[in-house]
Amino acid sequence: MEGLKVIEKRDKKIVEIADTKVGGGNFLFCAGPCAVESKEIMEEIVSYVKISKVNLLRGGAFKPRTSPYSFQGLGEEGLKILKETSRKHNIPFITEITDTKYVELVFKYADGFQIGSRNMSSFELLKEVGKTGKPVLLKRGMSATVEEFLNAAEYILSEGNENIILCERGIRSFDPAFRNILDLNAVAFLKKKTFLPVVVDPSHGTGRRDLVEKLAVAAMAVGADGIIVETHPYPEKALSDGFQSLDRDEFLSLAKSVEKFALFLGYEF
Amino acid sequence: MEGLKVIEKRDKKIVEIADTKVGGGNFLFCAGPCAVESKEIMEEIVSYVKISKVNLLRGGAFKPRTSPYSFQGLGEEGLKILKETSRKHNIPFITEITDTKYVELVFKYADGFQIGSRNMSSFELLKEVGKTGKPVLLKRGMSATVEEFLNAAEYILSEGNENIILCERGIRSFDPAFRNILDLNAVAFLKKKTFLPVVVDPSHGTGRRDLVEKLAVAAMAVGADGIIVETHPYPEKALSDGFQSLDRDEFLSLAKSVEKFALFLGYEF
Amino acid sequence: MEGLKVIEKRDKKIVEIADTKVGGGNFLFCAGPCAVESKEIMEEIVSYVKISKVNLLRGGAFKPRTSPYSFQGLGEEGLKILKETSRKHNIPFITEITDTKYVELVFKYADGFQIGSRNMSSFELLKEVGKTGKPVLLKRGMSATVEEFLNAAEYILSEGNENIILCERGIRSFDPAFRNILDLNAVAFLKKKTFLPVVVDPSHGTGRRDLVEKLAVAAMAVGADGIIVETHPYPEKALSDGFQSLDRDEFLSLAKSVEKFALFLGYEF
Amino acid sequence: MEGLKVIEKRDKKIVEIADTKVGGGNFLFCAGPCAVESKEIMEEIVSYVKISKVNLLRGGAFKPRTSPYSFQGLGEEGLKILKETSRKHNIPFITEITDTKYVELVFKYADGFQIGSRNMSSFELLKEVGKTGKPVLLKRGMSATVEEFLNAAEYILSEGNENIILCERGIRSFDPAFRNILDLNAVAFLKKKTFLPVVVDPSHGTGRRDLVEKLAVAAMAVGADGIIVETHPYPEKALSDGFQSLDRDEFLSLAKSVEKFALFLGYEF
Repeated sequence: MEGLKVIEKRDKKIVEIADTKVGGGNFLFCAGPCAVESKEIMEEIVSYVKISKVNLLRGGAFKPRTSPYSFQGLGEEGLKILKETSRKHNIPFITEITDTKYVELVFKYADGFQIGSRNMSSFELLKEVGKTGKPVLLKRGMSATVEEFLNAAEYILSEGNENIILCERGIRSFDPAFRNILDLNAVAFLKKKTFLPVVVDPSHGTGRRDLVEKLAVAAMAVGADGIIVETHPYPEKALSDGFQSLDRDEFLSLAKSVEKFALFLGYEF
Repeated sequence: MEGLKVIEKRDKKIVEIADTKVGGGNFLFCAGPCAVESKEIMEEIVSYVKISKVNLLRGGAFKPRTSPYSFQGLGEEGLKILKETSRKHNIPFITEITDTKYVELVFKYADGFQIGSRNMSSFELLKEVGKTGKPVLLKRGMSATVEEFLNAAEYILSEGNENIILCERGIRSFDPAFRNILDLNAVAFLKKKTFLPVVVDPSHGTGRRDLVEKLAVAAMAVGADGIIVETHPYPEKALSDGFQSLDRDEFLSLAKSVEKFALFLGYEF
Repeated sequence: MEGLKVIEKRDKKIVEIADTKVGGGNFLFCAGPCAVESKEIMEEIVSYVKISKVNLLRGGAFKPRTSPYSFQGLGEEGLKILKETSRKHNIPFITEITDTKYVELVFKYADGFQIGSRNMSSFELLKEVGKTGKPVLLKRGMSATVEEFLNAAEYILSEGNENIILCERGIRSFDPAFRNILDLNAVAFLKKKTFLPVVVDPSHGTGRRDLVEKLAVAAMAVGADGIIVETHPYPEKALSDGFQSLDRDEFLSLAKSVEKFALFLGYEF
Repeated sequence: MEGLKVIEKRDKKIVEIADTKVGGGNFLFCAGPCAVESKEIMEEIVSYVKISKVNLLRGGAFKPRTSPYSFQGLGEEGLKILKETSRKHNIPFITEITDTKYVELVFKYADGFQIGSRNMSSFELLKEVGKTGKPVLLKRGMSATVEEFLNAAEYILSEGNENIILCERGIRSFDPAFRNILDLNAVAFLKKKTFLPVVVDPSHGTGRRDLVEKLAVAAMAVGADGIIVETHPYPEKALSDGFQSLDRDEFLSLAKSVEKFALFLGYEF
């Protein structure tokens, strides 16, 4: 990792997504559906996540799905829904970008880019979001080493964009019990090595609704600067990732735990 | 996993190792060197772990080492040192057993057996420690699925011994940055599925001294019933695993964090 | 995998890259440098690969490198060198495409697209090369399951392009002895399941020059429709992947083995 | 791996199991059921494996099973059946040993020990079979690196026993499509590094009957000194591992391919 700017000794970076600060003691609590499905569902989600201290919305308009026959997202229509909901409730939002050809479009609508696990090594995309200067939440690849993860961030940084949030979201393992293994070793390590904020996605990191809350607070204990979770009012009807999306009650239970831990750990929140 | 007794719906088991209770709200704080090296070093270790609330000692007398030319442990001499130190300071101890032929010997000295990662599938050994009825701390195999782990515990249970503590100690991954990846998903899952206490070894789980404390408290946040850590007054001179052993100051720092979290989380401790 | 067109029961597809046929008994022998470095080096490579029965050239003009500071390829200049060398020696060529914005450019020069491991899940890219109808050599992602691999091919197929060659190139494992583990189970499985040709890249699949030849013939024994190898006249000076590139003599030794096995196995070659 | 005797530069070792030679150009063709179930079944198996050039029988009497409630083998009764069948047909046999307490017993009956994947790191067992001097077929652990594998062999060698056959049997991966991934990189590497014979178990290495034959010949192409396969006249009724056991016809088809490849590759057979 020698020679990477992302591991230079510097003050911890505070990334600002509109009014939401992340890092340096500022905690990110990001929630939303896997995919934006309709204005109504999005509104319903925000109606309950607003009860908590959620300070960033998430939702996919362009969905990278394993199968070409699965729901691929609403595209620009999804971006419009996100923007409208976000502005109405005054909570900024990020959304996934899957290809360089969407950079301009997503730039126009979103407060920040999300680069998903499948695109961590899409280096042209990293460079182009780097050029925009807009905040980027960069997820670790499914089987990326931490060194590769830091190099991916370096692609963004080397284009002059320091507004990067590293996101651990679980890695592939041999155990079919879990979709992924949440790697909190990496979170502790990245917090030591880099000046960038490091957040955790316990939804993908476990792939099981019943484990999300526990792993969310574990991530906080290990020093994460925030968490990002999937929620859906009717997980069993969700068009994607329902098995790992918290319903209203589960989400509010998690939010309570997150707030309790944030207080205990002294996060600005 | 259908049909396993270890996942029957029952009250949480409280395992007693001499006077130390584990599970059901009782927290295990186990510490000691990787290998017992001498009476003096053992005494020095206990002199500082006693400052904290450590309620179980650990130390290897029979060491399963990758190379036949590495230090293999002191054998019975190590057991004598452990016993003497333990009795003097009134803290019980467990020690690793690597073969059925040592069951009688270890039974005579130790307050509990430890089955290491390399022996999780040594089913004859599991059955024989099962027959003794003595407490067993069973570590997960390096690449064991949680289902295989539960089946290993079942080998002990099916011989009539319910005094089992499950121990997550990290799994193999593709990332050379860490010796192992501590799998806290598994801890959350095992806490839900089984009535046995579940503890965590962040020393092997990270393989790096500088990450042990953070992962220890993460394990607590996720619901672990205890932690087990390696410590050595002079890690750089340790005959095994020095790179992951905490020195005196690092250990006391960890102990402070552990106590702070235990208080916050409401553990009996 | 139910419902995928790529596993429909059909006659084996023969993919034609210019005059080179792949599949249905026609063997692909593809060789070239990791990256195109200069016209001279490219010419020197072809001067010795021509001695063998190589029927496809490879070479990277757009290189997806882990670090932004590593050599990134010559871009269009590289495509021109490839085209010129290819036409002069009358051997078609494929080259890697890393982003949708290069589709038109690469289409103009190359006889076929190569999608690398890092882009197997760049679904927009898969769809766009699918629309061109041009042959695509699709490499398996580093940690893609065979099911995910087949779904990636389905993205191309579902756009109407059946000219797909599946390429196994090694998967991630826990063993630092090898860059990747060549998964010949997958090759045998894919040959049974799909009607598409399946080829093997033993250079990436081992990451070690001294193992490439042995794994190449193993791939043939298991039923692969071809192999693709990296070669460079001066591996120690290569700008990328020198450690796994065969030099002239190593390449000619491999070519001899490949021809011997092809004869024994009855490939059209 | 520095300093290991198993990688000293020496003439290739030829291991003799009764009259069967392995290594240095002598090919091992070992077959038999996963577990010995009865004298009748064993006799039926030998009746068809004898049609081929099988020169070693295998069969488990002590079975290390994931669940304590699965069939655990016939114990000494199984050893008697193996011995009787072996002597009647004049083909030597090996059988798995799972604990030090069975060393004397297995020594008395078998022509060689088999150490299974789950016991590769049972170092006491390795030392004790090392002391006997009897041939040992040592299987690689499910997630053992090649370095750990060689160190396990060193445990046997360091007790003075050079009659060791290394056996690659597949490693754990993230892909649920296969029980294990057969690692032929390791076979090529071990053939280069060590003077010991290296054989391959494509039954465990794939976990699928329909892939065994293809991977067996791939192993031969890569340079393996032999293969070991599971066969059972009625796989669907087998008490263990039926899904990967070849029936009579599948076995004879494999045997034909093995013989064809042995001739082509110039093995003594």
